[in-house]
Amino acid sequence: MRSLSSFDSPEKGSTNSKNANTELLTEDSLRTRIAETVREVRDQTPLAGSITNTVTQNLVANAQLAFGGSAAMVYMPDEARGIVQAGRAFYINAGTILPIYEQSVVAGMDEAHSQHKPWVLDPVAVGLGELRSSLLRQAKQYPPTIIRCNASEAIALAGLWELNAGNAEGHARGVDSCDSVDSAYASAISLARCTGEVVAVSGEVDLVTDGKTVIYCTGGSPLMEKITGSGCALGGVTAVCAAVSDPLSAALTASLAFDVAGKNAAEKPEVHGPGSFQVAFLDELYTLSPEEISSADFRVEQVSE
Amino acid sequence: MRSLSSFDSPEKGSTNSKNANTELLTEDSLRTRIAETVREVRDQTPLAGSITNTVTQNLVANAQLAFGGSAAMVYMPDEARGIVQAGRAFYINAGTILPIYEQSVVAGMDEAHSQHKPWVLDPVAVGLGELRSSLLRQAKQYPPTIIRCNASEAIALAGLWELNAGNAEGHARGVDSCDSVDSAYASAISLARCTGEVVAVSGEVDLVTDGKTVIYCTGGSPLMEKITGSGCALGGVTAVCAAVSDPLSAALTASLAFDVAGKNAAEKPEVHGPGSFQVAFLDELYTLSPEEISSADFRVEQVSE
Amino acid sequence: MRSLSSFDSPEKGSTNSKNANTELLTEDSLRTRIAETVREVRDQTPLAGSITNTVTQNLVANAQLAFGGSAAMVYMPDEARGIVQAGRAFYINAGTILPIYEQSVVAGMDEAHSQHKPWVLDPVAVGLGELRSSLLRQAKQYPPTIIRCNASEAIALAGLWELNAGNAEGHARGVDSCDSVDSAYASAISLARCTGEVVAVSGEVDLVTDGKTVIYCTGGSPLMEKITGSGCALGGVTAVCAAVSDPLSAALTASLAFDVAGKNAAEKPEVHGPGSFQVAFLDELYTLSPEEISSADFRVEQVSE
Repeated sequence: MRSLSSFDSPEKGSTNSKNANTELLTEDSLRTRIAETVREVRDQTPLAGSITNTVTQNLVANAQLAFGGSAAMVYMPDEARGIVQAGRAFYINAGTILPIYEQSVVAGMDEAHSQHKPWVLDPVAVGLGELRSSLLRQAKQYPPTIIRCNASEAIALAGLWELNAGNAEGHARGVDSCDSVDSAYASAISLARCTGEVVAVSGEVDLVTDGKTVIYCTGGSPLMEKITGSGCALGGVTAVCAAVSDPLSAALTASLAFDVAGKNAAEKPEVHGPGSFQVAFLDELYTLSPEEISSADFRVEQVSE
Repeated sequence: MRSLSSFDSPEKGSTNSKNANTELLTEDSLRTRIAETVREVRDQTPLAGSITNTVTQNLVANAQLAFGGSAAMVYMPDEARGIVQAGRAFYINAGTILPIYEQSVVAGMDEAHSQHKPWVLDPVAVGLGELRSSLLRQAKQYPPTIIRCNASEAIALAGLWELNAGNAEGHARGVDSCDSVDSAYASAISLARCTGEVVAVSGEVDLVTDGKTVIYCTGGSPLMEKITGSGCALGGVTAVCAAVSDPLSAALTASLAFDVAGKNAAEKPEVHGPGSFQVAFLDELYTLSPEEISSADFRVEQVSE
Repeated sequence: MRSLSSFDSPEKGSTNSKNANTELLTEDSLRTRIAETVREVRDQTPLAGSITNTVTQNLVANAQLAFGGSAAMVYMPDEARGIVQAGRAFYINAGTILPIYEQSVVAGMDEAHSQHKPWVLDPVAVGLGELRSSLLRQAKQYPPTIIRCNASEAIALAGLWELNAGNAEGHARGVDSCDSVDSAYASAISLARCTGEVVAVSGEVDLVTDGKTVIYCTGGSPLMEKITGSGCALGGVTAVCAAVSDPLSAALTASLAFDVAGKNAAEKPEVHGPGSFQVAFLDELYTLSPEEISSADFRVEQVSE
């Protein structure tokens, strides 16, 4: 099990700290680290550039800014390399595929990997189309620091990567998940063990795992399914957190922030539907304190072999 | 005149039900069908994929989700076919043309047509540019189930299709309409008779026709012209409705929903301009009851030959 | 110094009125002209088409509409020429570069230049990538009527154009400015003298100059940095103003409108963060009176040689 006390500081390249340390990953140490992650994002305004989908990139950028980070979206291959170099983390969201992605997504993954910068993959709608499948298959060679997806995408990506737990047929219907987070448990563990990194599956219950420990968190609101891009925005905020923290704490911090912000926003008296919910949600991402996020409910379990 | 009592259930492929039934299309039967359409969308969350414009696709998707449907936007030709197959209706909005649209728009139209799935065309800015004209000319071969547009676009599309009532010169100034819905009456009827399907022209007064019956509805708010993509979003919601209903009821349901939601939103005390209007409008699309939509004002007329 | 009383009316092609008039550009004459610009935009709803970035184009269009103008975004080279012809001003925002921009940005600049239509350049992230640099280098041949940018971009663009005051290395980190407006003073003057037109640098203090006079304005809110595209939207509204006014008054009107709208929005009791701020900001752009904008604080200085 990974020791939290021994992860590298961001300056030393936190994402490559695959230590085989045996110290226990306790709930308390995680809570401390979550609060630190939020504080460091707000102090440092880290840039996490993206190749992301055109439908939701405005919300992704606004969520990254509201949470305290900085955003920049690119399409060209040389700009993908340039923005990886300029930033401290990178985010690839496969939501909408354009022809130029054949070069730029590979350039971005390669640059992040060779520069040892954390990068987050959101394999949206994995299974739809040749180029999308080809790019997501290649992602295995540049293992993403954090895979953030819904349950159907976790199962389908594990299948595409020919991991035992997956199902190459995919379960997704367009961009929606048709599977529960529970059903993606084995796929998530397999993906995390394959990359040696972290997988975060969001749904009614969120699951975050490094292949050894599984953390469950709840919260949010059914209204999050009624605004396009809430998952994409979570990927973007995860990348911002990964710029300053170890992958497990980064994925957990972002998931909890979205759970708390979603729950709080849905309870506001001025929220009557998805329009006012999105407004209140962005406000919450901006105003939530490190303590509000780090004290949210989650549960830590060890993966039984 | 089409009989409403005999339209096919969605499972049987409602869009090809061009029955020559002579039963009267009454206001009462329409109101019943409108309420059913709203209920079925909310019960079934039908996916209506799109090739749509980059400026407004976020609002299109959010409107589709708020109303109860599901959304997915694509660019690649094979993904256009894939999302038609995965969904129950399809939407093509010509607002922004990219080079890849030369293949993907044709692929999408062809797939929808050969799979007998309803598809909605919004011929935004018809007349601007070679590729846009070429694609919109080709649309005639894969007749759209519903053409949704403003008055200038109806006149220009009828012209591009060389129908008598149209004007190939076009009247549009960019994406705006410079013509009243009345002036597009003949073009709308011609387009509907050419496709054998439905045309919906929106403006201060909306006109929905199947070439035999014309339905007029009013409502909305001048603020709808002050948010980009209210027309595009109407096209997207029309596609969601077409996934569960006959084309005429689908087009009418979506138009009325926008009229009622726009009118209600503009009257909210918290609405002071286009920013707060858009928020309240999405909330209204989400909260409006089937009865509020089906009891809205409209007027049915038979087309005199 | 340019005389304000002698600028051409929009019908006569205001942007080419580089008169060598010696009358004084006074604060009073500017205030009169600002109020007129706002009134003319609202009376005439001028179309300012754009090639703009995919992340923020929805906000750009909504800001243009809220302020009283009309918007249309294009990608194809022939559509760039077509929308320049259909409109009264044009806007190029380099935020996200796509392969087709190699042709379409040049087509748009060339068409605006040869048609003597005012055009606004926002050289977002100048320095990132080959194609972006090539296009922004070429912009010098079709001198933009107004360059609107942040301080880092002004310094980097002056460098790219090999003006003495600039720095080709660039200071930008992604899309953010790392320089104060003061530090861009010399670059802004150089750019304005090179084009013979106007440069507007936005930041905590905004600087608008025609190379002879410098106008400083303040206002806005720190929340403007927390919504993506506030600068892009300012470029779009500047283009709408340039459609009806001389370049200096246009740039100043748009900057003041954003300063006042930002300040007012941030003070609203319902604004709690960037989500509600963006909503209130768009409402303010829509409701601000010509007098509220023209009476905002600014300071006029003559450039010492």
